[in-house]
Amino acid sequence: MIKVGIVGGTGYTGVELLRILAVHPEVTVNCITSRSEAGMPVADMYPNLRGHYDLAFSEPEADVLKACDLVFFATPHGVCMRMVPELMAAGVRVVDLSADFRLKDLDVWANWYGMPHESAEWADKAVYGLPEVARGAIREAQLVANPGCYPTAVQLGFLPLLENELVDPARLIADAKSGASGAGRQGKIGMLHGEVGESFKAYGASGHRHLPEIRQGLAGAAGTDVGVTFVPHLIPMIRGIEATLYAELKNPADFDRLQNLFEARFKDEPFVDVMPFGSHPETRSVRGANQCRMALHRQEQSNIVIVSSVIDNLVKGAAGQAVQNMNIMFGLKETLGLEAPALLP
Amino acid sequence: MIKVGIVGGTGYTGVELLRILAVHPEVTVNCITSRSEAGMPVADMYPNLRGHYDLAFSEPEADVLKACDLVFFATPHGVCMRMVPELMAAGVRVVDLSADFRLKDLDVWANWYGMPHESAEWADKAVYGLPEVARGAIREAQLVANPGCYPTAVQLGFLPLLENELVDPARLIADAKSGASGAGRQGKIGMLHGEVGESFKAYGASGHRHLPEIRQGLAGAAGTDVGVTFVPHLIPMIRGIEATLYAELKNPADFDRLQNLFEARFKDEPFVDVMPFGSHPETRSVRGANQCRMALHRQEQSNIVIVSSVIDNLVKGAAGQAVQNMNIMFGLKETLGLEAPALLP
Amino acid sequence: MIKVGIVGGTGYTGVELLRILAVHPEVTVNCITSRSEAGMPVADMYPNLRGHYDLAFSEPEADVLKACDLVFFATPHGVCMRMVPELMAAGVRVVDLSADFRLKDLDVWANWYGMPHESAEWADKAVYGLPEVARGAIREAQLVANPGCYPTAVQLGFLPLLENELVDPARLIADAKSGASGAGRQGKIGMLHGEVGESFKAYGASGHRHLPEIRQGLAGAAGTDVGVTFVPHLIPMIRGIEATLYAELKNPADFDRLQNLFEARFKDEPFVDVMPFGSHPETRSVRGANQCRMALHRQEQSNIVIVSSVIDNLVKGAAGQAVQNMNIMFGLKETLGLEAPALLP
Amino acid sequence: MIKVGIVGGTGYTGVELLRILAVHPEVTVNCITSRSEAGMPVADMYPNLRGHYDLAFSEPEADVLKACDLVFFATPHGVCMRMVPELMAAGVRVVDLSADFRLKDLDVWANWYGMPHESAEWADKAVYGLPEVARGAIREAQLVANPGCYPTAVQLGFLPLLENELVDPARLIADAKSGASGAGRQGKIGMLHGEVGESFKAYGASGHRHLPEIRQGLAGAAGTDVGVTFVPHLIPMIRGIEATLYAELKNPADFDRLQNLFEARFKDEPFVDVMPFGSHPETRSVRGANQCRMALHRQEQSNIVIVSSVIDNLVKGAAGQAVQNMNIMFGLKETLGLEAPALLP
Repeated sequence: MIKVGIVGGTGYTGVELLRILAVHPEVTVNCITSRSEAGMPVADMYPNLRGHYDLAFSEPEADVLKACDLVFFATPHGVCMRMVPELMAAGVRVVDLSADFRLKDLDVWANWYGMPHESAEWADKAVYGLPEVARGAIREAQLVANPGCYPTAVQLGFLPLLENELVDPARLIADAKSGASGAGRQGKIGMLHGEVGESFKAYGASGHRHLPEIRQGLAGAAGTDVGVTFVPHLIPMIRGIEATLYAELKNPADFDRLQNLFEARFKDEPFVDVMPFGSHPETRSVRGANQCRMALHRQEQSNIVIVSSVIDNLVKGAAGQAVQNMNIMFGLKETLGLEAPALLP
Repeated sequence: MIKVGIVGGTGYTGVELLRILAVHPEVTVNCITSRSEAGMPVADMYPNLRGHYDLAFSEPEADVLKACDLVFFATPHGVCMRMVPELMAAGVRVVDLSADFRLKDLDVWANWYGMPHESAEWADKAVYGLPEVARGAIREAQLVANPGCYPTAVQLGFLPLLENELVDPARLIADAKSGASGAGRQGKIGMLHGEVGESFKAYGASGHRHLPEIRQGLAGAAGTDVGVTFVPHLIPMIRGIEATLYAELKNPADFDRLQNLFEARFKDEPFVDVMPFGSHPETRSVRGANQCRMALHRQEQSNIVIVSSVIDNLVKGAAGQAVQNMNIMFGLKETLGLEAPALLP
Repeated sequence: MIKVGIVGGTGYTGVELLRILAVHPEVTVNCITSRSEAGMPVADMYPNLRGHYDLAFSEPEADVLKACDLVFFATPHGVCMRMVPELMAAGVRVVDLSADFRLKDLDVWANWYGMPHESAEWADKAVYGLPEVARGAIREAQLVANPGCYPTAVQLGFLPLLENELVDPARLIADAKSGASGAGRQGKIGMLHGEVGESFKAYGASGHRHLPEIRQGLAGAAGTDVGVTFVPHLIPMIRGIEATLYAELKNPADFDRLQNLFEARFKDEPFVDVMPFGSHPETRSVRGANQCRMALHRQEQSNIVIVSSVIDNLVKGAAGQAVQNMNIMFGLKETLGLEAPALLP
Repeated sequence: MIKVGIVGGTGYTGVELLRILAVHPEVTVNCITSRSEAGMPVADMYPNLRGHYDLAFSEPEADVLKACDLVFFATPHGVCMRMVPELMAAGVRVVDLSADFRLKDLDVWANWYGMPHESAEWADKAVYGLPEVARGAIREAQLVANPGCYPTAVQLGFLPLLENELVDPARLIADAKSGASGAGRQGKIGMLHGEVGESFKAYGASGHRHLPEIRQGLAGAAGTDVGVTFVPHLIPMIRGIEATLYAELKNPADFDRLQNLFEARFKDEPFVDVMPFGSHPETRSVRGANQCRMALHRQEQSNIVIVSSVIDNLVKGAAGQAVQNMNIMFGLKETLGLEAPALLP
């Protein structure tokens, strides 16, 4: 059994990790930390876990975490980068669900996250944990930076186009929409039901922290810098991201082979599903499941490739992908604990 | 492996059975029937099942069903009662999720369902499948009538009070609320998102088909006729039932022992969770899970016992309870395939 | 033109007052106060008011308020009772949307609101502003206590039964449900979209501040003490309250005349609509409108009267009723500014 | 008083016309037709109209309609084009909320709507009723084609860019999202609450009927053919459209003057509101109001102009704009009956 610790467990990614790990046959959760809620049984905060865990939140203590085989960080940015060196030194492996190790350019990181980065060494060594791109490196990694939710949906949809240099890399547009759980579980007025319900809006349209992460990932796939416009939106629902991607095909004749290309690219991927050409993936088709589902579209006489890509932001966009990374790191079957179908309706 | 057939698989209870059975280790789904959609792969109608089933909907054929160990009926009322005699004769076991075999008084049945009952023999032999009341009989049953969603939530909450004769059986009130999936998956204007969203209303307040089922079940628990007022309401959400139950305590001093009594009554029940006195169960705490969660309340100087009871109408209120019944019937661990925590948030 | 001031304008009742008064032909809003947002244009906080108001939030200053003809308090409890004496002395009239002057028994008030009451004189003189009960007194009042949202829906539905002594006053049950805007606009985790959406629960089931207010109002109607059980619930939507009321008819034969009785009771009321017997009022049918809509039900062989009563908690349950009271106090047409139909769908 | 008739009043645009006209001081609704519901009082179908209308749905009869000054068609496509010639001959003015007269190229119309057009004469004479573009022509028109909902939001946002030739007209992208009321009020399974709630998806991504309408309108503004990609999405809410528009600025230096340009373009428009640069319009800020609200954005180092534009699809996207057109046609104040602020929250 893999002994797991979770740092920062009171948020939505924390409870989602617990939900997934509750039925994972090779994992035991040793501790889950929260400074603010230390002492409170997790099942008191999250009654869906009643009967599944006896665990209570605890203060984050280095000794306890060092006794784990793997520690998940489900913390705000800035926490993991301070604790990682000590855990690395102790030989613990870490999957960081926060943003601390996602960007390789630490000036860019400091600029977007408003603080200097404090662990250049591990920022360099960290593996960006998108299994569909970096499975081999993840297997060997001691520190995996779990991708952001939007970047997961956006990168997976653009990958085959950029890897095969089929589209103009300077003209990428990602119009993305997310449910409210993506904003986390903090008492912000703007995220009240009375504010979010029955309304829809763009946010961060002039710049969002996931933009440099997307840009870095797409540049890696393209082998060149990319120009990408990314606009996130808030959907009046809880879970789910849909990203509609627009790219300009260099050669319109390539439209005929796109579907095959996408299917071939993800043929062996257990968690990416390419639907038939012209399908419309629904976020509910992946609710609660570690799955990215996508489909391609073309409008008449147009050379714009349209890709619609959906994930559950808390699963393939966070906790599920983290468990997928753990499975890879520990040589387990990659789908272990992640087999259940999405909850529909 | 238990060979399972599902009759009438295009509705929400059908897809929910498939979702649950997809991860059940002792079941293989042999067929799923739908006259209207015969030939369509189930995963085309329900994309959450892509990768989980190769099965297509088929015409309901007696030979195929008779080759099953167990057949679930997820049909409108009137279908199962016509097919059951042939299946019974063939030795197949049946869990009927429709209303055909829930009422013992067939005049009452005919009155509420608007047609004569066609299988008095099996109406008599059928076991009403509320495991918390009839586990032993379910184990031996060839035909199990799976309880309705509202009756499950309402009966479980009233049971300890009536079984112990603590309350006035003539003055029971059940104010119940359900998400929209309870109305099924048919193109009714009244169930459009534009009609149901952002609104709340009572319906069936002058009489609802679940009323006689509730009355029969409570009378069984009380050992006497009961007077129960039952008003269902429609919540602008998809899954979940909350029932707030009101009963008049004969002896107000009994308030002190109610919590212990409820906990003792359900101590060995894997799917009933009595929360601490004064808690407020949320429907989301059971979303997707085969669970009934309840709590007790008292208002100052009052002799009214208040019970709030929640279930997922599609799981403990339908498909999950059906699988629980199957597990009991086949001597499996009762929780098999039903272990995953609810999806929260 | 009536010069109006609003104290505490940043919450949902504040913006709702502004929305309604924007089209009221006899009112000009002189000031709207908020300590925390002083200086911010109201239209920056509430973009629906762009183009309708040039006003900015201001510090609450006695001189400015004293220059108003009428001041609405849309504040938390405890604020109005401290400011009222000075305003009363200056001859200003006040409609208090908070709870400060709703209860006549100040010990009960202190007990439920956790502080001593500081204005016994005005608590005594204040008129409880339910126009359907106290229109004459409201006309003459200098200080009107605007009723709570739940109490409005519950009292209106029970009134004809109690005024005519048709039901057992000791056995009243009010099962009420509200949209999330009733909790106000504060950054509470429990009111996040991620917490409220797609879920339903009871809350305050062991006791809620509206209970003594309901008890006081119903006792007034009955001419005797009443026993009432009141359980509020949270609906995953923004606006609307539905209350399902249960009362035991003393003489079942009275069922035949209930509909006429209700229609007669509210015949001249512009904002109470009795639907045909057996109807199911929807909260959306009153969304944004100053309306209470109700209907009666009976279940077979039962002597329980069921009343379903709906209002928009922010309108007839708060700001709309406050404007209705203002119209009465100033001798205007009672419906002025309140004529628009509800927003449906 | 303008005598108004409404043909096809049972859908959401029909009830919305009634809601708006109920408070319009210069209009009396003479008749509202529905073949299927003839005889039913409109307030029985739409209880929000109880007390506002005594009218019942009636069979559409030419004589009654010809006695009107203005007839609104709120019908499926194909109806208005057959009835228009007779009404035109009788001197009646018509605002058609259906798609019959929106496209000038009748081959394109026939192709998208699957039937030949039957009134080429009036298709030619009809004025496309976007007041911000064609106010003068609308004033004189006998037949006004009320724009589609998406085309209204998309055109208004692109107008200043195209009219001033600031962007590449071949590379326009409109990623648009709509609430479920846009699909109308018909019993389609795909629009059930159980299907639409808590989910998000693109639809019509390979081609949607509003695409040629958008293309025609934008070409008119640009004075040249345009290349526009338009992808609509379904939001789990009832009312509201948000369109995020992307266009490539020919000269990045023009970014500095865009805000002024937009503000100047719409300075005298009562129903278009340009928010400060970098704002995020919310659909709820226009709920129930005849308003288009928009804002501009730029991402660092990018030459892509981003415009976010919101409307209520049933108001500025349908019934409200129709009443605005009526006001213009009859020389009334353009804002008459359309002054109320949006319902927020």
